[in-house]
Amino acid sequence: MGTPVPDVDGRSRLLAAAYELFAERGVEAVSVRLLAERAQVTAGLVTHHFGSKDGLIEQVDAYALGLCSEILAGAMAAAGERPDGDARPIAGVQDAITDALSDQPVLRGYIGRRLVSDSAAGQQFFGQFAQLVEAGLRQLRSAGAVRDSIDHMGATVLVVHLILGPIVLARQWSQLAGIDAFDPRLVAPVAAATSAVLEGGLFEPEPAR
Amino acid sequence: MGTPVPDVDGRSRLLAAAYELFAERGVEAVSVRLLAERAQVTAGLVTHHFGSKDGLIEQVDAYALGLCSEILAGAMAAAGERPDGDARPIAGVQDAITDALSDQPVLRGYIGRRLVSDSAAGQQFFGQFAQLVEAGLRQLRSAGAVRDSIDHMGATVLVVHLILGPIVLARQWSQLAGIDAFDPRLVAPVAAATSAVLEGGLFEPEPAR
Repeated sequence: MGTPVPDVDGRSRLLAAAYELFAERGVEAVSVRLLAERAQVTAGLVTHHFGSKDGLIEQVDAYALGLCSEILAGAMAAAGERPDGDARPIAGVQDAITDALSDQPVLRGYIGRRLVSDSAAGQQFFGQFAQLVEAGLRQLRSAGAVRDSIDHMGATVLVVHLILGPIVLARQWSQLAGIDAFDPRLVAPVAAATSAVLEGGLFEPEPAR
Repeated sequence: MGTPVPDVDGRSRLLAAAYELFAERGVEAVSVRLLAERAQVTAGLVTHHFGSKDGLIEQVDAYALGLCSEILAGAMAAAGERPDGDARPIAGVQDAITDALSDQPVLRGYIGRRLVSDSAAGQQFFGQFAQLVEAGLRQLRSAGAVRDSIDHMGATVLVVHLILGPIVLARQWSQLAGIDAFDPRLVAPVAAATSAVLEGGLFEPEPAR
């Protein structure tokens, strides 16, 4: 508000600026100078508080990973509490993740970019998702909900791509469609199609020959 | 072989080096100096032949897009020629793309990275895939092969994620699995699961209540 901000806030302002800028442009494309400008601090404060740009990235990664874990835990809990007691929470998990990310454009930009980066954090995000999907599918299989003939690992990879595809390709879909990839006009038909395909396939049953 | 290479080859050696290095590390992570070293030319030759690093990137993008178009056209043709005359070539297209990319680790590294980059080329790769999938599904729908109840756009987005997921997340899967993501031990079960899910869903039919 034009009031001079006390220096003690420099650290949190840098973290907030980094979170936003990394989500918008990717960590490689953001200079220390730009970070400092956005945070309204001197560039020296990056070194002072975080040792280096890498130290700052590490802090922001930890913050985003924390948010991400909360969303995944929330999505699993929401899917488990479906009133119909349905043993098919995969679509529910995807819906819950989509809902949570719709409200958090910065987080989904951040995760989308980090997931496909060559970073330990990206691999951690990825491993977290893959593990969650694997465990969820294993549970569903024990409950007899997954078709026996379908390979467990194959199904896990497929479901990971259905959940992460919209996140890592969000910018590409947005540009192609001319509207935000998380706009309900795109999200709703994709969620419906996913649910329908997981329940009964994409294709009409093959006629007997 | 230790023989001094004539300077006229500098341009093609730079293109080859750029194609490999960009695939391995991403365009941002590759310096002009590293390009020149790998190509065994002076850094000045980049400017001489391509104006700038951006000019070189443009040439390599065009080359990779050309290869990519060939593979997509080949995959469509192969799927159309299936001996059983089956109207379900989506799984066939995916198989053909996977086969073609298995033999071309540099190309899939290159496409995987460029697809998710903020570049015109990445968007072009993406648009090309999305358009192909949309047209293929439209054709299948006209032939009565796609379930009527499934939204066309939703299905298109879903199938794009099934095809591109393995390409854009290849490094992440490789690191998680400890083997190459395009190793048949990973590819075969995923292809089988995809085919089974598209034919009949992932889940057992819901019991009547």
